[in-house]
Amino acid sequence: MTPPGGKVFDRHRGGKLAVAPTVPLDDSDDLSLAYTPGVARVCEAIAADQDLVRRYTWVSHVVAVVTDGSAVLGLGNIGPRAAMPVMEGKAALFKRFADVDAVPICLDTQDPDQIVAAVTAIAPSFGGINLEDIAAPRCFEIERRLQAALDIPVFHDDQHGTAVVVLAALRNAAALQGRKLEDLRVVVCGAGAAGVAVTTMLLAAGVVGASVLVCDSRGIIHTGRDGVTGQKAELAAMTNPQGLAGDLRAALRDADVLIGVSGGRISEEAVAAMAPDAIVFALANPTPEVPVKVARRHAAVVATGRSDYPNQINNVLAFPGIFRGALTAGATRITEGMKLAAADAIARVAADDLRPDAIVPSPLDPRVVPAVAEAVAGAARRDGVCRSV
Amino acid sequence: MTPPGGKVFDRHRGGKLAVAPTVPLDDSDDLSLAYTPGVARVCEAIAADQDLVRRYTWVSHVVAVVTDGSAVLGLGNIGPRAAMPVMEGKAALFKRFADVDAVPICLDTQDPDQIVAAVTAIAPSFGGINLEDIAAPRCFEIERRLQAALDIPVFHDDQHGTAVVVLAALRNAAALQGRKLEDLRVVVCGAGAAGVAVTTMLLAAGVVGASVLVCDSRGIIHTGRDGVTGQKAELAAMTNPQGLAGDLRAALRDADVLIGVSGGRISEEAVAAMAPDAIVFALANPTPEVPVKVARRHAAVVATGRSDYPNQINNVLAFPGIFRGALTAGATRITEGMKLAAADAIARVAADDLRPDAIVPSPLDPRVVPAVAEAVAGAARRDGVCRSV
Repeated sequence: MTPPGGKVFDRHRGGKLAVAPTVPLDDSDDLSLAYTPGVARVCEAIAADQDLVRRYTWVSHVVAVVTDGSAVLGLGNIGPRAAMPVMEGKAALFKRFADVDAVPICLDTQDPDQIVAAVTAIAPSFGGINLEDIAAPRCFEIERRLQAALDIPVFHDDQHGTAVVVLAALRNAAALQGRKLEDLRVVVCGAGAAGVAVTTMLLAAGVVGASVLVCDSRGIIHTGRDGVTGQKAELAAMTNPQGLAGDLRAALRDADVLIGVSGGRISEEAVAAMAPDAIVFALANPTPEVPVKVARRHAAVVATGRSDYPNQINNVLAFPGIFRGALTAGATRITEGMKLAAADAIARVAADDLRPDAIVPSPLDPRVVPAVAEAVAGAARRDGVCRSV
Repeated sequence: MTPPGGKVFDRHRGGKLAVAPTVPLDDSDDLSLAYTPGVARVCEAIAADQDLVRRYTWVSHVVAVVTDGSAVLGLGNIGPRAAMPVMEGKAALFKRFADVDAVPICLDTQDPDQIVAAVTAIAPSFGGINLEDIAAPRCFEIERRLQAALDIPVFHDDQHGTAVVVLAALRNAAALQGRKLEDLRVVVCGAGAAGVAVTTMLLAAGVVGASVLVCDSRGIIHTGRDGVTGQKAELAAMTNPQGLAGDLRAALRDADVLIGVSGGRISEEAVAAMAPDAIVFALANPTPEVPVKVARRHAAVVATGRSDYPNQINNVLAFPGIFRGALTAGATRITEGMKLAAADAIARVAADDLRPDAIVPSPLDPRVVPAVAEAVAGAARRDGVCRSV
């Protein structure tokens, strides 16, 4: 076949990563220090004191970026091989933005038991596990089981990275309008991995459960609805105590905030029915749930996931600094406190110059990662999840 | 505790590897090409034609260096964490000598079923699997099952890398003495991973089974001996048709070649009983089975695994070029023909200037890897194991 051409494909030819030695290997002295016979002494030291693996190997600064290829970008279940360009890109961003070494691991299974077994088996090789593009609902179970099995951070970025950046953006949007999170009526459109994590995080940050409605393709989620199980049952229990039913349009009536994490489409009429000074985050990529032009007619603050509009709500604001902070602090997990600290840090970077089209920093702003890393490491210490080495 | 000090530990602090992006990530154009939204086009192309993963990701040049930590160097079963310094070193050598990117994977299981499952699961992420420091006999089963399950090269270096370099060295030692492999009486001392592979390879290269005796800790292996099962039964069937019994000393009487891959000790008396112009390869590391000084009293050619003596029989002569050649050719496995070609290529590099203390090239000789890679790629094409892309 004729290979696909163009600038994008040129950029990806041969992949986007390399592994390089960080020690000299130029003469036999170098070999005898870095490899046999010298290396045997290091092995013996670690065999006697396992914690030394963090001092004398790269384990303390290398993260596995793990996917099963089941929910890649907006492309769906395209499998592990087609997912590799995204995982390589993610690994490249880890290094570029936070000096975290990262290795893409694309798994040839979509069975939760096998995924948990494989990641548990390879875990001694890594200082953290970034789960990526794994479909809901099994992403919840896989993350929970892996975190229980491992003493290193396990972080499903599609959930928590998104939630952290959404919270940062919402903090600044509210601050810009002189409002408090506690006073906002919020509609989350989408009950997948991101919707669940965003809702959970907003509630942890102070948004009131009674002011939140979560919608899926069948409309507002409530405890009385048929077939509301698993994560949706948890969402129903956390939100909408009034048991409101109805479609998304009903949900949006007089709402202050719309957070779209669905990939669906939302009509202009529905957005027009929101309260004055509405805040609209339409995060589906590449096509926002509401066209930006339309959203701007009815909302005071508009954000998307795209790099070609202002207010890009992009996970790259969060995951590099979160892992950098967790690894530096020797954290064994990523706590709710660490995620909240990350969101606050991201928000603060943009706080000095808040404008409706600048509620979050640019992903390329060099202040972001150090601020997030420091905040996350501090929260890890406060939360008592750092190993004692 | 007080950390171990010294030059070796300084060299290993923080590990010996880094992952780096090979594409620029400096502005939003870069991000949109290497990551979203551009990357989605590459993912879609691979989803439509899986073979494109070899063109547009790093999979075609990255190898997993996999261990379960059960037989690390001469240190034994020290576990996956203590094995990491060796696996990192190996990965560093892959890059330094053959520009092969390599990722150390230390597994938290020593169960063959779980090892096979884990490596099979992560296999789409890699272009080859280098198994390392896995104890016999399970190393044989694991390699066989993985090669059957995967369409990428699977190569247990402790077996085949050692065998390739031993064959290269023996070819040149024999040539130096004007002898043929067919005429040599060979004793292999050690029936573990290396002993089995060395014996198999020597026979494939022309050494006569009736002229080979393999010894383990109980003496000469023969079909009539109690408890000779598995790989030892295969060794017994391939060698020693006379059914000779006895200890190592009996085996060595009038032998031309001793290949020590046991880690044990061999007495001077036993070596003294070998035929004139004996060839002794005492490969245990760091302590050869026969001290070099002692071996030299009775043998015409002496080789060890150590870098501080001449004739270092070191796997680094083989594995970088073997994987480089296999990856370049798009080989789906490493055939016997590819290993024999590698041995010949290594031997030829030293052939111009053969001396008793120069039967193999230095591991740092820059001619080795290109010669091995070219020979291996050629053999892969002849053997018809290259994918058709």
